[in-house]
Amino acid sequence: MKDLKTYIEQNKDRFFEELFSLIRIPSISSQPEHKADMVRCAERWKELILAAGADKAEVMPTDGNPVVYGEKMVDANAPTVLVYGHYDVMPVDPESLWNTKPFEPVIKDGKIWARGADDDKGQSFMHAKAFEYLVKTGQLACNVKFMLEGEEEIGSTSLYAFCEKNKALLKSDIILVSDTSMIATDIPSITVGLRGLTYLEVEVTGPNADLHSGIFGGAVANPINVLCKMIADLQDDSHRITIPHFYDDVLTISDEERALMAQAPFNKEDYKKAIDVEELCGEEGYSTIERTGIRPTLDVCGIWGGYTGEGSKTVLPSKAHAKISMRLVPNQDSQKISDLFQKYFESVAPKYVKVKVTPCHGGEAYVSPIDMPAYKAAEKAYETTFGKRPIPTRSGGSIPIVAGFERILGVKSILMGFGLGSDAIHSPNENYKVEHFLKGIETIPYFYKFYAELMKK
Amino acid sequence: MKDLKTYIEQNKDRFFEELFSLIRIPSISSQPEHKADMVRCAERWKELILAAGADKAEVMPTDGNPVVYGEKMVDANAPTVLVYGHYDVMPVDPESLWNTKPFEPVIKDGKIWARGADDDKGQSFMHAKAFEYLVKTGQLACNVKFMLEGEEEIGSTSLYAFCEKNKALLKSDIILVSDTSMIATDIPSITVGLRGLTYLEVEVTGPNADLHSGIFGGAVANPINVLCKMIADLQDDSHRITIPHFYDDVLTISDEERALMAQAPFNKEDYKKAIDVEELCGEEGYSTIERTGIRPTLDVCGIWGGYTGEGSKTVLPSKAHAKISMRLVPNQDSQKISDLFQKYFESVAPKYVKVKVTPCHGGEAYVSPIDMPAYKAAEKAYETTFGKRPIPTRSGGSIPIVAGFERILGVKSILMGFGLGSDAIHSPNENYKVEHFLKGIETIPYFYKFYAELMKK
Repeated sequence: MKDLKTYIEQNKDRFFEELFSLIRIPSISSQPEHKADMVRCAERWKELILAAGADKAEVMPTDGNPVVYGEKMVDANAPTVLVYGHYDVMPVDPESLWNTKPFEPVIKDGKIWARGADDDKGQSFMHAKAFEYLVKTGQLACNVKFMLEGEEEIGSTSLYAFCEKNKALLKSDIILVSDTSMIATDIPSITVGLRGLTYLEVEVTGPNADLHSGIFGGAVANPINVLCKMIADLQDDSHRITIPHFYDDVLTISDEERALMAQAPFNKEDYKKAIDVEELCGEEGYSTIERTGIRPTLDVCGIWGGYTGEGSKTVLPSKAHAKISMRLVPNQDSQKISDLFQKYFESVAPKYVKVKVTPCHGGEAYVSPIDMPAYKAAEKAYETTFGKRPIPTRSGGSIPIVAGFERILGVKSILMGFGLGSDAIHSPNENYKVEHFLKGIETIPYFYKFYAELMKK
Repeated sequence: MKDLKTYIEQNKDRFFEELFSLIRIPSISSQPEHKADMVRCAERWKELILAAGADKAEVMPTDGNPVVYGEKMVDANAPTVLVYGHYDVMPVDPESLWNTKPFEPVIKDGKIWARGADDDKGQSFMHAKAFEYLVKTGQLACNVKFMLEGEEEIGSTSLYAFCEKNKALLKSDIILVSDTSMIATDIPSITVGLRGLTYLEVEVTGPNADLHSGIFGGAVANPINVLCKMIADLQDDSHRITIPHFYDDVLTISDEERALMAQAPFNKEDYKKAIDVEELCGEEGYSTIERTGIRPTLDVCGIWGGYTGEGSKTVLPSKAHAKISMRLVPNQDSQKISDLFQKYFESVAPKYVKVKVTPCHGGEAYVSPIDMPAYKAAEKAYETTFGKRPIPTRSGGSIPIVAGFERILGVKSILMGFGLGSDAIHSPNENYKVEHFLKGIETIPYFYKFYAELMKK
């Protein structure tokens, strides 16, 4: 593939422009006012897949946002790779913290700045361009199918049914995903473990209306105080989650495996400095890498109640709310954990308030074996373009549908992510290194080459 | 005063219209966008005081919202009554819970519905009309001064300096205030105790930006979880406040006084039903009336942090905030309590977060002796119009400036409140019974009459 670097160099400005055309569409799946943007974004993807050389592509309806499907079948005997990505993005608030407009991508300081620059428009679009190169130069050795969904950030709600319904269409030997990070620009890595997720919303109601905090304060339970106490009680002093049976299904990791994990490069001081905290904080008895890789968590993602405007208002509010996410590890069942949380939270509610728990979405954890052909092909591809062997890592993040693919389609996934931990995905000022974007386009073609070779043997 | 009832009956429609002209001005002191409304409301008050028969009235500037001052001096030997009220109101959010527009007053089911209907436009305006009656009928036996401020709901910030500066102008024998409630329509009461207040805002900062709750969750302290724990720890299981030395200055109430308080009519089931809670909750060892009357409290008036929009966002937020109010009892110093809170809250902050405490405002508690002439005059006035002796009560609410008047002007206040606990002041659907509004206008003239008589002796 001697012409690969030249091809990228000569076409990269067009690549950026095409990517930007996707980014400019504010496809925020969690906000109903962006419904039309979801469809626009799917349609744009369809055009781009066709332009890249697919035989066919279509926008397929679901009960939620549509799925973009495209394919190019080159040889019935060649392995089939299903490329998965998502065209939906996270909300952008607080927008005031962005240095640039979230949906007006700019390249500055060697990075693309925009919501979706990395997660996942930037990363998934690398596949379209790697594919284009292989098609245009007649080197495509695998059958390729594309599937882009518009609900990853809200739990891939409709994709499970879509997969059930389209098993034949999605038949493949491996699913190829770029939606994760690597350790550093010069330390390639492949994610072999993903955490699962359970997301719930809780509502605590005290009195039936906001009350005067003087007249009633002291005699009537304040739902904010109660919610704070209930949330505080969900973790003990060693930062372990107190929900009964929460840890029952967590697999014990052997000392050997923990020793292996401890070899991954990690600089605690740099890590603390990057996020500007004086001390790290997590479950007692585990390292930072373990806390995000192999241990489950409980985080309040949002909380609100009472008067939150400027100035002061002396009120004893009627309601308090929180959004709570729990990251799960392999063998924990998200539905079971959701049920455990709900049952426990409701059971510990004091009689002087009413508590409502609404499960939002969830997904299972995933493990990718490092001896499967796809892993070996990916490993070899990284070695070719980075000059060093990638490190297998476990990510703290979740791509619940990846476990779903295995369950429904019976197909494993290989997670070739080219992001960085510092890309600020889900945060203001999301960015994606141009170098990584181009390196991804350069690495992916080798994956197809080596994978086809390995599957032939 | 045989013509009093007739006068009210014949003029009440005009009284309503005049009151409504004040209510229609959205004079929310805590929201800077209403600055101009504050001035408009003050100007309107000035017109109404002059129309009611004052010799002079003016809108006097302060560093904040202006003060309306007016007076009618009838006799150098007669006692002087300073009528105090406030023309500012609380915010109206959440507006969606209002059944009518908050600043478009309507009379329905025997009540005036609007923000400020009771607190304090409705209550303070009764004084203008009682005064009008006495002037028009030549029965005014006291010199009367009016002082209406526009910052009561934000701590009367500028009124302290105003009083310091205008001691001669405000010289008086008693300050007359209607900004409290009575027990029930058929149970008149006079508030003889008010709680003080300390209001602070706290901010907890974890990482310097919102982080992905999967990538970082479990290894980095979540400021919402930390804030919840810090708030929970401010009270123990018996609902006592844990801040060291918080109770040091609280006076012990004698068993006799507690027994007396217990005689006030109180129906726990009705109280619970009115606010729709299954159980009441407060400091162990005290009754509901004691919890709101003689014991200090700590309430979170507002909390916010992370993603609070629709749908779900998996974020480990950078910041979490809360607004906290503490109601204080006589002998507790609000500045001292504010300092104690700040010192304690900052000292218990774990190293993995940064904590900022911003004191907002405060005020002292107040006690009114029941043997002073003004109390006796008020008692006799209620007896005349209600046919029964009013009960002296302690209110859980705060009017910090009342303690300020005593300190700066050396003048006691008498709190002739005609509101009801169910008037929903500070809440959606604030209301004021028409019957109470008119009864107030009927009762106040007798206060002047009896007070002048008592002071002559």
